[in-house]
Amino acid sequence: MSISFASDYTKGAHPKILEALIANNLNQMPGYGTDAICDRAKLKIKEACGCPGAEVFFLVGGTQTNQTIIDMLLKPYEGVVAAGTGHIAQHEAGAVEFSGHKVLTITPAGEETDTDRFGSEIGKISAVELDAYIEAFYSDGNHEHMVFPGAVYISHPTEYGTLYTRKELTDISSVCRKHGIPLFLDGARLGYGLMSKRTDVSLKDIAELTDVFYIGGTKVGALFGEAVVFPKGCPVQHPVPVIKQHGALLAKGWLLGLQFDTLFTDGLYFEISRNAIEMAELLREKLKEKGYTFLLDSPTNQQFIMIDNDKLKEIEGQVGYSYWQKGDSTHTVIRLATDWATTKEDIDRLMEYL
Amino acid sequence: MSISFASDYTKGAHPKILEALIANNLNQMPGYGTDAICDRAKLKIKEACGCPGAEVFFLVGGTQTNQTIIDMLLKPYEGVVAAGTGHIAQHEAGAVEFSGHKVLTITPAGEETDTDRFGSEIGKISAVELDAYIEAFYSDGNHEHMVFPGAVYISHPTEYGTLYTRKELTDISSVCRKHGIPLFLDGARLGYGLMSKRTDVSLKDIAELTDVFYIGGTKVGALFGEAVVFPKGCPVQHPVPVIKQHGALLAKGWLLGLQFDTLFTDGLYFEISRNAIEMAELLREKLKEKGYTFLLDSPTNQQFIMIDNDKLKEIEGQVGYSYWQKGDSTHTVIRLATDWATTKEDIDRLMEYL
Amino acid sequence: MSISFASDYTKGAHPKILEALIANNLNQMPGYGTDAICDRAKLKIKEACGCPGAEVFFLVGGTQTNQTIIDMLLKPYEGVVAAGTGHIAQHEAGAVEFSGHKVLTITPAGEETDTDRFGSEIGKISAVELDAYIEAFYSDGNHEHMVFPGAVYISHPTEYGTLYTRKELTDISSVCRKHGIPLFLDGARLGYGLMSKRTDVSLKDIAELTDVFYIGGTKVGALFGEAVVFPKGCPVQHPVPVIKQHGALLAKGWLLGLQFDTLFTDGLYFEISRNAIEMAELLREKLKEKGYTFLLDSPTNQQFIMIDNDKLKEIEGQVGYSYWQKGDSTHTVIRLATDWATTKEDIDRLMEYL
Amino acid sequence: MSISFASDYTKGAHPKILEALIANNLNQMPGYGTDAICDRAKLKIKEACGCPGAEVFFLVGGTQTNQTIIDMLLKPYEGVVAAGTGHIAQHEAGAVEFSGHKVLTITPAGEETDTDRFGSEIGKISAVELDAYIEAFYSDGNHEHMVFPGAVYISHPTEYGTLYTRKELTDISSVCRKHGIPLFLDGARLGYGLMSKRTDVSLKDIAELTDVFYIGGTKVGALFGEAVVFPKGCPVQHPVPVIKQHGALLAKGWLLGLQFDTLFTDGLYFEISRNAIEMAELLREKLKEKGYTFLLDSPTNQQFIMIDNDKLKEIEGQVGYSYWQKGDSTHTVIRLATDWATTKEDIDRLMEYL
Repeated sequence: MSISFASDYTKGAHPKILEALIANNLNQMPGYGTDAICDRAKLKIKEACGCPGAEVFFLVGGTQTNQTIIDMLLKPYEGVVAAGTGHIAQHEAGAVEFSGHKVLTITPAGEETDTDRFGSEIGKISAVELDAYIEAFYSDGNHEHMVFPGAVYISHPTEYGTLYTRKELTDISSVCRKHGIPLFLDGARLGYGLMSKRTDVSLKDIAELTDVFYIGGTKVGALFGEAVVFPKGCPVQHPVPVIKQHGALLAKGWLLGLQFDTLFTDGLYFEISRNAIEMAELLREKLKEKGYTFLLDSPTNQQFIMIDNDKLKEIEGQVGYSYWQKGDSTHTVIRLATDWATTKEDIDRLMEYL
Repeated sequence: MSISFASDYTKGAHPKILEALIANNLNQMPGYGTDAICDRAKLKIKEACGCPGAEVFFLVGGTQTNQTIIDMLLKPYEGVVAAGTGHIAQHEAGAVEFSGHKVLTITPAGEETDTDRFGSEIGKISAVELDAYIEAFYSDGNHEHMVFPGAVYISHPTEYGTLYTRKELTDISSVCRKHGIPLFLDGARLGYGLMSKRTDVSLKDIAELTDVFYIGGTKVGALFGEAVVFPKGCPVQHPVPVIKQHGALLAKGWLLGLQFDTLFTDGLYFEISRNAIEMAELLREKLKEKGYTFLLDSPTNQQFIMIDNDKLKEIEGQVGYSYWQKGDSTHTVIRLATDWATTKEDIDRLMEYL
Repeated sequence: MSISFASDYTKGAHPKILEALIANNLNQMPGYGTDAICDRAKLKIKEACGCPGAEVFFLVGGTQTNQTIIDMLLKPYEGVVAAGTGHIAQHEAGAVEFSGHKVLTITPAGEETDTDRFGSEIGKISAVELDAYIEAFYSDGNHEHMVFPGAVYISHPTEYGTLYTRKELTDISSVCRKHGIPLFLDGARLGYGLMSKRTDVSLKDIAELTDVFYIGGTKVGALFGEAVVFPKGCPVQHPVPVIKQHGALLAKGWLLGLQFDTLFTDGLYFEISRNAIEMAELLREKLKEKGYTFLLDSPTNQQFIMIDNDKLKEIEGQVGYSYWQKGDSTHTVIRLATDWATTKEDIDRLMEYL
Repeated sequence: MSISFASDYTKGAHPKILEALIANNLNQMPGYGTDAICDRAKLKIKEACGCPGAEVFFLVGGTQTNQTIIDMLLKPYEGVVAAGTGHIAQHEAGAVEFSGHKVLTITPAGEETDTDRFGSEIGKISAVELDAYIEAFYSDGNHEHMVFPGAVYISHPTEYGTLYTRKELTDISSVCRKHGIPLFLDGARLGYGLMSKRTDVSLKDIAELTDVFYIGGTKVGALFGEAVVFPKGCPVQHPVPVIKQHGALLAKGWLLGLQFDTLFTDGLYFEISRNAIEMAELLREKLKEKGYTFLLDSPTNQQFIMIDNDKLKEIEGQVGYSYWQKGDSTHTVIRLATDWATTKEDIDRLMEYL
């Protein structure tokens, strides 16, 4: 592969993380995240979120984090409400069901979606639909024989790179609080959402409006790691055994703390996220110039374009991309993702192929 | 309640079952279905199904049976494909997910269904849609990150009283066999399907075309009990502990054997099922006479009518019915179900209220 | 088999239950235990227990009941403490583990037990051992990596027919309350415990000292059914979907209500339990006369004797018994159980063989 | 803490791993272990194991690995046989039960163990006991109501640092094969077992005698990672979704491949393991010189000594150790662990405190 825009997790970590790793490599540390580096990283994250009373945990990867958090939020007879396009509904091998819970989808699963939802809405749920769903559930005389909506899952950015506005998030949060249902925001790509030129949502807004969210490291400059934040505290009395039961308690937990400590020092997380956004904007411009059309107008680091099937064959093996879905009879929809380390030169090289 | 058509499980058992119960009450029997009455009942069922090599188990209720069979069929990373209106997808409190498996729905969940599917199709899946779903799954480059389709669930009659034709069943069965996926038919109301005036599907057809099905007792003349038939044998080497783990192994298993032995002696099961169908036909006729319109043209014992909301208030507390869904602004859709014990007098009394 | 003392669930139901069944057979009843008969039965049970504020549920069988209650009591990271000989630890096919929880045994698993525990202690746990176990758990620096003790399971009578004294129950209850851990009493044979000549424990004592228990029907005069009592209310906000998820929600729930209504009318449950005890005392006397020795001095309906292996071969196929464990080189330990319907004539016939 | 011998996972990774990480940091790699580095590492491991037909997977941590493998090996109605002291039985927060399976322990849980087992036997199971357990299970007439032994778990080195001899492993393997039950060897500290001066077991022996084992990285020079080897192939048709369901599929799987590629280049894994052994031998010598007594004669990197309680207080906060268990009235048993990076200077410093 000469150049890849297949995803935002093709590279290692920001050099500062490797430096910190080398510096701490032989310092002996207690296990399972009970070390001072984790403590320091948690403090910095709580400060960045504006919620000193938060509880923060570091987990290793996205599916693991979604599964563990959802299992923490739900009672056994409850399911999690999500968009049909949600990562937990589609691409986590049934990890939520494996833990005993149904994913209750309230929008279609993607390709089938009518085009009206495209643009800035695909991948999102609306407060109105959510409220209607919950109201309908409780007004159904048979609801004791059905799966209770016990938490709401949203991703921001979504799997389509789209973003909630602050107004939308506030409305969803209000619906959740009206019904006493916790709101969980999957921030696997959170940095790219926060640094979008077209967002009015800040990290503090998210901490205020959700009950739990995570700050993705794997896709934003870390080797691996997701920082889970419960702004009002964790609902589980003993989170450690719950995390361990999910196979999610890293022996050398300080590796996670160290990465987030680095990312949340001097705003590195935000700075490198901004790079991905700037490169995505540049990419979009250049693609437009070349006449490519877009599946939707994505404000973040993932761009979805229609590409001629012949062209696609031509670049095969030379340009890394993600197959997304069928387009029309002569085109395919592919995803191109920039990341924290993408350079202008990378874009130039990509455009040579395209 | 003066008269109820709310469901087909409002009454006890056929008098012959009670007689058999009294006759055997103090005969000492070994536990857990290892008795001679169960053996005899199994033989009669295998004969009725035309498959002497079948394995038969007796379980207590429908949700329990669906959960246990599906768990027997699936590998941990597999889900069960079903209609969005399927009982397992809607009204079993997430029992399938509780066992760790996703229900993969390939049609909408009911009310939202566009009216084109109504008539004889609602509640069913089609071989074409099923095949397309499975093909799409395996052609998706990410399918190792998704839930594998590991079994297909259909109900016959469906939750809407509709029936598959032999052609349709054959086609679905062919798709399943092509992909090596077992076909499971939920026959909670099987008698009412087999005795419909408008079916060409026999019990032997079902035994031939499916990999597992059950013959519902709870809704068809028994106090409780479902007879699970694996026409080609059970895929699980030790079914007893699996059944017990699901809380489904009755200590006095002979109670189940005794009921099915009675129902499968001299064709009682079919005879009493026919009564429900005849009463449903009579009911439909009378309702049509009175000008009621139907949600769909159901060929079995469940009839779905549009009823004026004022009328509904009027009969409240006097006529038992099942609320089904909203109709138009002035009407509601309700379900009226006949059963093995419904009499002409019951219909007459109902019509007085309607 | 000419006569069987193999277990206390070899027969059907007390005739009064069959009469009630016949009388109610065609009365139409709402489903899932929402009927008036269930309500009436619950009232009678609450009165018998002396706790009007209790919540009562009717489930179908023992393993199902143990599994469902334990799952209701435990958080995901908790296990249930039990005797190694406990039914949940040995003979329920891992139903508790199937629901995700460990059984934490604090005594050996039976046969290996040193003989000092025999006599009246086998099958029981002690308050002292329980307290030591819980104290040791919390004083272990690694306990966040271990399974938390989240509930305590005892059976009364135990699997060996032994009984707790009121003092012992009170002490266990105190330990549980000290640690904030609910106490669950498996009463599959509760009647036989309450009617023992050698007990000072009443039903009201049990209601006062435990957090949940059940009154066994299957082994004490009912066709099937266990009445679960939460004296201080159920800890789960929505028990119906939890019960349904466990496959334990009977469609014709009134069948359970009707049986317990009958058993708790005019003290029938206690009266028929007393019969089993009287017959067990008679049996013990006669066995002693014949020179049989006992594994332990059981005060309830299960008697465990050493029998010569040659004798055992002789009665094979004529007398039903339960193999219990190996005895010495020439003897085997077998269990003989009387029940609610055992007669003097049954005992006489048995003794002819023995 | 001035110096810590608390465990073998207190430090980062061998410098060569960090070098490899830096060298590959910005090379774009496909996700989820589908990269060329993983392929290369797998080849090297298969070669070292002498089994070119093996299947190898890289997982992140020990509990996760144990849980995932055991879930792969077992049918739903099966449990895993283990020593009562086994890590899965004691210190994994019930992760095996969380996946629905019972841990069937055939030896006591440790402290209670009578002293006869100490020395080289503690932590191990014997082929004779294992065979007796399985034979007893199948000869129990009630075994269909019990948890089937479906796999055998051993650790090598054990949690007490002890080792199986080749003869013992061969015998256990024979018992497993006789009964058709797979043998799983937890090698979280495998290097320290293989490099012990007192072992006759090679990596190839393990590959020959077991059905699955893992080569621990976390405790032997890697940042994290366990290499799972199925010498005769994996019994699960689609391991990827199974691994993902357990939250164990690392997005940047190449990080695992890279570490094992480094460890299995030029015998690095063995070389650094030998260091820990040599340091442990030195430590043992020096401790003996000082008159310390040992809980057992451990042939690997974990040493368990009796230490005076006053001495323990004195070194508190200065020397890192693991509390193990109570000793006599004036002593405590502590664990001291050497690792791949322990130096003679570390030992000297430790001895100054002791």
